[in-house]
Amino acid sequence: MGPDPAVASVRVAVRQALDAVPPGALVLVACSGGADSLALAAALAFEAPRGGRRAGGVTIDHGLQDGSDERAERLVRTMAGLGLDPAGSVAVTVGREGGPENAAREARYEALDRAAARLDAAAVLLGHTRDDQAETVLLGLARGSGARSLAGMPAAFQRPSGVRYVRPLLETGRVTTHRACEALGLEPWDDPHNDDPAYLRVRVRNEALPVLEKTLGPGVSDALARTARQLRDDADALEALATRAYRDLQGTDTGEEGLPVEGLAELPRAVRTRVLRMAAIDAGSPPGTLAAVHVDAVDRLVTAWHGQQHVDLPAGVRAFRRYGKLLFGAGSPPRRGRQ
Amino acid sequence: MGPDPAVASVRVAVRQALDAVPPGALVLVACSGGADSLALAAALAFEAPRGGRRAGGVTIDHGLQDGSDERAERLVRTMAGLGLDPAGSVAVTVGREGGPENAAREARYEALDRAAARLDAAAVLLGHTRDDQAETVLLGLARGSGARSLAGMPAAFQRPSGVRYVRPLLETGRVTTHRACEALGLEPWDDPHNDDPAYLRVRVRNEALPVLEKTLGPGVSDALARTARQLRDDADALEALATRAYRDLQGTDTGEEGLPVEGLAELPRAVRTRVLRMAAIDAGSPPGTLAAVHVDAVDRLVTAWHGQQHVDLPAGVRAFRRYGKLLFGAGSPPRRGRQ
Repeated sequence: MGPDPAVASVRVAVRQALDAVPPGALVLVACSGGADSLALAAALAFEAPRGGRRAGGVTIDHGLQDGSDERAERLVRTMAGLGLDPAGSVAVTVGREGGPENAAREARYEALDRAAARLDAAAVLLGHTRDDQAETVLLGLARGSGARSLAGMPAAFQRPSGVRYVRPLLETGRVTTHRACEALGLEPWDDPHNDDPAYLRVRVRNEALPVLEKTLGPGVSDALARTARQLRDDADALEALATRAYRDLQGTDTGEEGLPVEGLAELPRAVRTRVLRMAAIDAGSPPGTLAAVHVDAVDRLVTAWHGQQHVDLPAGVRAFRRYGKLLFGAGSPPRRGRQ
Repeated sequence: MGPDPAVASVRVAVRQALDAVPPGALVLVACSGGADSLALAAALAFEAPRGGRRAGGVTIDHGLQDGSDERAERLVRTMAGLGLDPAGSVAVTVGREGGPENAAREARYEALDRAAARLDAAAVLLGHTRDDQAETVLLGLARGSGARSLAGMPAAFQRPSGVRYVRPLLETGRVTTHRACEALGLEPWDDPHNDDPAYLRVRVRNEALPVLEKTLGPGVSDALARTARQLRDDADALEALATRAYRDLQGTDTGEEGLPVEGLAELPRAVRTRVLRMAAIDAGSPPGTLAAVHVDAVDRLVTAWHGQQHVDLPAGVRAFRRYGKLLFGAGSPPRRGRQ
């Protein structure tokens, strides 16, 4: 008899992720003790030796809740029992920079970076599921706009430290990781933070997504996760095109300032608005405050020019058009009556 | 004293839309009597003569509700009172093809096409608002995936009839059209269908969007509408690139069948998956049933080839790889042991 279908499904996802890891290398799993990362840890312990890789586990003790050290010790024993070697916990101190959620995340990643470097691990697996991805897409909607903010979490990425992180479960539902733990007799830990409505993500999970599923049908999380993947591809392709177009337009007139309006006008709008955004950021406008409405106003200097004086952008940057060029400067407008 | 800000805001939107209409031409507004199209009709009646254009109004009587003919007559008198000339109603018979909502929409557009052709109108204005756009984006999420299904309604489009349709209010909230009607003393008609939870769109409007606004903040409709506009640009740009890449790859080996795998592999994934989709549709797979999961499987023939036999696509189309080419055929697989 084969394994439970949920167990098999998590294992297949991990096996595919291990394909990209060199034989003999060590792969770590970052495990909180929750159902997602616990199911992931069990699957890694099962698959890695069968594929000629080594598997280890790390849990982070944030020290934010009473008894977190004991819980970490119990989890280390569970991981060792699954066959993860090494299995260990790392205590971190969480600052407050950028809010408690951001501070905890950054502290966690830095600790994982150090553990991976110390153990010479080829990759660290993270337990984010399709449901986490759907929540991230909806959060992106609230935060900003456009393909990049809806593109969710990448399936793999490299930190500035050089450590590679992989999310094998981005297409696996949370219900599957819970079933897998049950089938394997593993008892996941329910973090009380996961139900604290003080967190926006918790409200998205417990209020927004259930109503969307009720209204639009049960496939919503799946559709959001699939959309994220496609929009990530789209954003990658368009950003690469814009980077090249920006470089080419700068090179059009070596030694001269500004971007030729004619060349800008020939670009598809999706590429042109990205080029204008890059130019505004290069001129000193901070990416975080430069909004679509600013870029649209600059775009009208190119496509709907009827003598506008200039467009003011965040941080005192000013865009204006003169002699067929689009220029970005520090609040020094062109003289009247000229272009 | 200037007009009410809501009235002014609708007028500005209409004025911008009229810029694209030749002087002296007739512009029609399609008016249901609801607040959105009634505010639009009033703004068109005000702006068109000031900009040297003529303004007329048409209402469609679907004959689906008792008293719809009397209501249409009253609305024609209201439109004439606003100064729209001609103002008239057209009775349509609604079939059942593609469901009642689709049938009513198609019947409505055909009647508008005929009215516009008969009156030689340069454009027909439609009253869809930012809220309608937000609903459309959420409906697109449920229906499909990717940039195109999230791109909502275009601000302007041409029907196969050649008639041009424009939506000036896509960035105007429903609350503004209601306020504008109130300020002008116009009494909009509340279509009971607009609150019938049998319609998916009504459930999105009355259940999904309010919960998203409560969870993510009041800017959600705005973010959804802005996202739609940006994703439409993205989809346009990537589809144009894919169309060109598809043509170039077909031309690589004139007289020979198939797309060269090497050339496909060099494309960004966002462009390649669109090329593969075009090729599958050209081979006979219906666009409506060809899903992302099919295209992904074909993509793996290019990027993760380890001897897969073939990929079966809807309508008996089969994709396979042979001698460095990707081929689409009707269920005739390549012989084993060759590629």
